[in-house]
Amino acid sequence: MTVMQTKQPEKINLDDILSYGNDPEMISFAGGFPDPKLFPEAALKQAYLDAINEDGTAIFQYHTAQGDLDLRERLADRMRSHCQVAATAADIMLTQGGQQAISLIAQMLLTPGAGVVIEAPTYLGALDVFNRYQPHYYEVSMDEAGMDVDQLAALLAKHPEIKLIYTVPDFQNPTGTTLSAIRRQRVAELAAKYQVVVLEDSPYRDLSYNGSVPPTIKHFDQAGQVIYVSSFSKILSPALRTGWLVADQRYLKTLISLKGASDLQSPQISLRAINQFLSHQDIDAHIAKLRTVYREKRDTMLTAIEHYFPKNVTYTKPAGGFFIWATLPVGIDAGALLADVAVPQNHIAYVPACCEFAIPVHNNGMRLSFVGCSPAEITRGIKRLGKMLTELV
Amino acid sequence: MTVMQTKQPEKINLDDILSYGNDPEMISFAGGFPDPKLFPEAALKQAYLDAINEDGTAIFQYHTAQGDLDLRERLADRMRSHCQVAATAADIMLTQGGQQAISLIAQMLLTPGAGVVIEAPTYLGALDVFNRYQPHYYEVSMDEAGMDVDQLAALLAKHPEIKLIYTVPDFQNPTGTTLSAIRRQRVAELAAKYQVVVLEDSPYRDLSYNGSVPPTIKHFDQAGQVIYVSSFSKILSPALRTGWLVADQRYLKTLISLKGASDLQSPQISLRAINQFLSHQDIDAHIAKLRTVYREKRDTMLTAIEHYFPKNVTYTKPAGGFFIWATLPVGIDAGALLADVAVPQNHIAYVPACCEFAIPVHNNGMRLSFVGCSPAEITRGIKRLGKMLTELV
Repeated sequence: MTVMQTKQPEKINLDDILSYGNDPEMISFAGGFPDPKLFPEAALKQAYLDAINEDGTAIFQYHTAQGDLDLRERLADRMRSHCQVAATAADIMLTQGGQQAISLIAQMLLTPGAGVVIEAPTYLGALDVFNRYQPHYYEVSMDEAGMDVDQLAALLAKHPEIKLIYTVPDFQNPTGTTLSAIRRQRVAELAAKYQVVVLEDSPYRDLSYNGSVPPTIKHFDQAGQVIYVSSFSKILSPALRTGWLVADQRYLKTLISLKGASDLQSPQISLRAINQFLSHQDIDAHIAKLRTVYREKRDTMLTAIEHYFPKNVTYTKPAGGFFIWATLPVGIDAGALLADVAVPQNHIAYVPACCEFAIPVHNNGMRLSFVGCSPAEITRGIKRLGKMLTELV
Repeated sequence: MTVMQTKQPEKINLDDILSYGNDPEMISFAGGFPDPKLFPEAALKQAYLDAINEDGTAIFQYHTAQGDLDLRERLADRMRSHCQVAATAADIMLTQGGQQAISLIAQMLLTPGAGVVIEAPTYLGALDVFNRYQPHYYEVSMDEAGMDVDQLAALLAKHPEIKLIYTVPDFQNPTGTTLSAIRRQRVAELAAKYQVVVLEDSPYRDLSYNGSVPPTIKHFDQAGQVIYVSSFSKILSPALRTGWLVADQRYLKTLISLKGASDLQSPQISLRAINQFLSHQDIDAHIAKLRTVYREKRDTMLTAIEHYFPKNVTYTKPAGGFFIWATLPVGIDAGALLADVAVPQNHIAYVPACCEFAIPVHNNGMRLSFVGCSPAEITRGIKRLGKMLTELV
């Protein structure tokens, strides 16, 4: 558990990290980009057509900040069936991907000096949002069962300025670990006890490769302190820029108003196309296909790491999601290695630890995405990376 | 010229105002909704098809925060030909409508207590953004040639905490007035002298019904202090949620980073569909059609007002855009009138003055949108409204 003071925004820029893809020899494990071969192109094209044909000119008009009711109703059904959350359409707001949900929740809760609990490491795009508010970060360390909830309890007891707990409980970004059911219940209870909001960021939940996932934290939320966030980016297409949040009415009202000020509303054409897709296609069959392909890629990467990485590099074995987290021996700066050796000499990219911790002392980790490359590229890339690491350590 | 202290956010909610449309007898002049009959439905549907067919699966992937390069290049051409601004694609960022551009610029510049100059009255959605920062508002009054630039000069000389001048120079929302060329030049010079940013919000520029419009303020901007904002909402479709801003690099870099944190990027499918539309369709021919229809509606509303409104109600005669502004005798609260009489008894809606001033003392004005209703509805609605006002004053 580390307590830190307010930190100025770092020069972390998602676009910069993701632009390594311009080198034709590059094998990039950096971006959390879905496999483009798995986008249901024909079905999505048909969904846009159906949406425009059925809705007519109304689809091109202004609509509401909360977002299309039909789509919210479908999502409420899904919250009940897939997340064990008794939400209705009235409890849901549609957002520009999960990212906007994080941004709006931060806007609602944070002022300079507010306390934010984050997992160490955590999702770099969330840090990018929180940094704007110059918060006090409180990092909670992770083990195989997710964030250490005893650390969380101690922090909440000691720091009443904490307003927000940010967690990615399912196949976490960047470590791939999953928060255990008993800890989820504890997080919900602590949030209720200390009247702190939990932002449960769950874009990978459906991408489970080893069977079932524990209930959501929101499922255990009796005090209305958990805001659940998810997205179509990983299970359908990130270019739809469509996510949703589920929140208690006392938060939802403010969030709808903040959404209105931010961009009035989401693009109705996208929302109605997704609604058509969900009405005519079996999204769970599509997700099952993603699972099969991504499971193989995960297994390929784990096998290659086992084979090619030096033995003093440790790594996680995720049960789902997009990412494996590798920890290099202490003293190796994965960021410097990326910029000086991995990208220019070995044409390999990953996201280095410096992007994923609020406190830049942890620099010996790397996030490896296994979903964007083919199995053959994964093996080739990990072999290259392993050779580089073996020469180094 | 009015100087005011920090103000708490009012309960202004665009969604609430626009939901008056649920009454079937309602004739609403409230929302700034384009005429849905003018949406180019078939061409937009084809544009989505073409975009998906030509780009293939790449269209569904993550892209960049700044937005699609092809579309930015087309917009740079348009900035040169229609706005007399020598911008390149590198100077442009795509946004979720003009609203997101306003929101990101405010996020970049404002902190509690910062000074913001606004026109009195001004666009209610901009107030909704600025209110979050609890700024000091400095209102500048308007005449037939737009904002009073002598007042502006005096404010800038006296209040160094002013960070932002917000103006809608073309067919202003809500008054319909247009800032004269000589005043535009003065605004740009004052911004340079005092190192203040001008947010030139220009969504109505193309909708001119009486001939040419003065050059943009950005055209006179030699110091890079003017950020130009526009949108496809009024000239194509608001449901595309696509706008753009043109800014000096020192501002653009920050704005791109803020956009990334807010929602990562705009939906690539929408951006590529607009790019297809602009490539296969003549948008200026489409705009010429909008002008013809909206000119007739404006004329219809002005004729009806002349005929049916009591003589002690004054009103503007806009040369373009969406709105006429009517001023009732002092002492009549247009907001109370709306809630108590106009909506429940007369089934007429407008946006009352209280929404459009930072200082709620000006309550005797109403914004009347002439674009959403048919000419017959306009005449019927203005007759009803005139009867109500005649009985009242």
